[in-house]
Amino acid sequence: MESKRNYEVADSHPMNGGQGPYSYVQNSNYQRGAVEASKEMIEEAIIKHFDVNKTLNSASFLNQIFLADLGCSTGPNTFLAVQNILEAIQLKYQLEKRRHLDHSDDHHVHQIPVTFQVFFNDHFSNDFNTLFRSLPPTRKYLAAGVPGSFHGRLFPNSSLHFVHCSYSLHWLSKVPSQVMDSTSPAWNKGRIHYTNAGKEVVKAYSDQYAEDMLSFLHARAEELVVGGLMVLLIPAVPDILLPSDTTNGTEKDLLGSCLVDMAKMGLVSEERVDSFNLPMYYSSPSELKAIIERNEHFSIERMEKLNNPKKHLSLPNLQMRVYYLRAALEGLLQKHFGAEIMDELFNRFSKKVAESTFFLNPQNQKSIVLFVLLKRNPN
Amino acid sequence: MESKRNYEVADSHPMNGGQGPYSYVQNSNYQRGAVEASKEMIEEAIIKHFDVNKTLNSASFLNQIFLADLGCSTGPNTFLAVQNILEAIQLKYQLEKRRHLDHSDDHHVHQIPVTFQVFFNDHFSNDFNTLFRSLPPTRKYLAAGVPGSFHGRLFPNSSLHFVHCSYSLHWLSKVPSQVMDSTSPAWNKGRIHYTNAGKEVVKAYSDQYAEDMLSFLHARAEELVVGGLMVLLIPAVPDILLPSDTTNGTEKDLLGSCLVDMAKMGLVSEERVDSFNLPMYYSSPSELKAIIERNEHFSIERMEKLNNPKKHLSLPNLQMRVYYLRAALEGLLQKHFGAEIMDELFNRFSKKVAESTFFLNPQNQKSIVLFVLLKRNPN
Repeated sequence: MESKRNYEVADSHPMNGGQGPYSYVQNSNYQRGAVEASKEMIEEAIIKHFDVNKTLNSASFLNQIFLADLGCSTGPNTFLAVQNILEAIQLKYQLEKRRHLDHSDDHHVHQIPVTFQVFFNDHFSNDFNTLFRSLPPTRKYLAAGVPGSFHGRLFPNSSLHFVHCSYSLHWLSKVPSQVMDSTSPAWNKGRIHYTNAGKEVVKAYSDQYAEDMLSFLHARAEELVVGGLMVLLIPAVPDILLPSDTTNGTEKDLLGSCLVDMAKMGLVSEERVDSFNLPMYYSSPSELKAIIERNEHFSIERMEKLNNPKKHLSLPNLQMRVYYLRAALEGLLQKHFGAEIMDELFNRFSKKVAESTFFLNPQNQKSIVLFVLLKRNPN
Repeated sequence: MESKRNYEVADSHPMNGGQGPYSYVQNSNYQRGAVEASKEMIEEAIIKHFDVNKTLNSASFLNQIFLADLGCSTGPNTFLAVQNILEAIQLKYQLEKRRHLDHSDDHHVHQIPVTFQVFFNDHFSNDFNTLFRSLPPTRKYLAAGVPGSFHGRLFPNSSLHFVHCSYSLHWLSKVPSQVMDSTSPAWNKGRIHYTNAGKEVVKAYSDQYAEDMLSFLHARAEELVVGGLMVLLIPAVPDILLPSDTTNGTEKDLLGSCLVDMAKMGLVSEERVDSFNLPMYYSSPSELKAIIERNEHFSIERMEKLNNPKKHLSLPNLQMRVYYLRAALEGLLQKHFGAEIMDELFNRFSKKVAESTFFLNPQNQKSIVLFVLLKRNPN
């Protein structure tokens, strides 16, 4: 009996809460770039694919649009993304209304949706207090927070029209167990990420990514109405990388090398470093496409590299780059290593980045963000 | 165009957050008593009035039950209330199933609802982080937090089957403006509550209560499906009170007298005390009934004094009584007077209660809790 299902509190690793110097609120300009760069693509997706007639204006949802931002963190990026989606849907309604008026088709008069219900989702330990207190006072939607992992079920069946998920799907639900097993060929000794590690480690990470992405798609297929849309902005890497290229993974590997240095100096135990790995994976476009195609409930309406001309400007100096990483990873690192070594660790990381001849050179940075538009099939 | 409506952040006064000594989590045993005492009445209400056939198992909600606890605070009482409601609805489904099997009526085979979606509502400044992190790990429902004042709209149209609201509706949306106006006959000088004040002050409070209750009912009438149920547990006073009787208002008046004492000693300014009033009102049954009847969308299915035999045991000693009040009022008091006088204020209150010959005598305490069951009419 499915109602016996429990919804458990999963292990989680939210962004830094609050409004302080290392908070996500203060250090998410980089991620904001993707939201801004995707605005027109989202508008286009909604104008072209959001079916206000058959699917979305049915009796059960009359003039009510339900949307969710998954992995919303504490703001403010999520509010901008939601606003972009709302405006695009309102535009779509207006265009449909005008189209039907032009055809004098009285059977299809469309009202602007009365109510938008927006669900903000993130881990149980996300700082929802900060999120709720920063909700835009002029917003035109009902707001709710939904705590829990998006790798599992979050919403009732067929209850959402639109899902947005930005800069979140590179987080794995957990570190693959093999990379922490000293008897496994995938043991990731001396590193905290698969970047620059052996192929067994890379495979353990990519297998976990595929499993997590399939869980995500499976849950969303149940939650989206038929015809519902999903926009995913996924940090990724190109299909082909040269040895001189750097990615978002490179900085994780560099951070790991700081921890190894600290272990050598006795500032932290070697065992502690070896038992830590970052649950993050950056897929290539071809790998991601193959995973999505394994789920039969979605059609890929669009999938391409996001064009973000401001990308290299969003972290203009060394401090902002280090703070951006600290806002995202400190919670996870603190849990394993304790709060007391955080300043030392990020100071070391900062020095290593500053000393690197190629790291801050934007020409070497080959990380991309994939814009993926999926539509829920009738099957 | 209704979609232009804004959902603004209202002024709010949540219970003390966190898990500390003065937190609501640690000091809500008194309120828990009402939840426990109402368990059987809720079960009876659901068995008798919750229509799983026509209203609730329609195409748009097939096997999905949506319920909300309004004024949920940080737990744990809300989890107990929700669990009681869930169990009663499951029982109702089982009884219906058995009834139809007995009549071999194949057209009405009922499945146990697959999904319960529970919305936890409280003010924007409520400590939702504590609430989410304390969600029972074995719960069998999807959980969402909905921030905002229940005196306004919180949910989409016709989107809820069951609303629960315990120990919350005695909070007003604001202090009536007249009681803070020195030129008004309702100016409440030298007090922080209407208890023992002049009739103009009492009228200003009761008018505000009626206005707020009507706003609450108006919003819920839009949000509940036809046939949907609402259980309200409302702190109140008997229709007839003797001068020797004490109520929940008496302790607020006593707290006010401590502030007046402190003003006389120069520990806080007189003006500061005069400009502070508690936005709380305790209705009588007849007054509340008359207000509810002004809203045509609800029928009163049951309204009576909650029988809580453990009431006098829930705050067994002086400290628990003082902490209970502090958990509920400190946020509001701090905002006006600053944090630094809180210890002094509650120490003085504690002494006054201890010195009173009648205050701790349960025989004098005449406060009641009203159990109100409302059903959404088809009109």
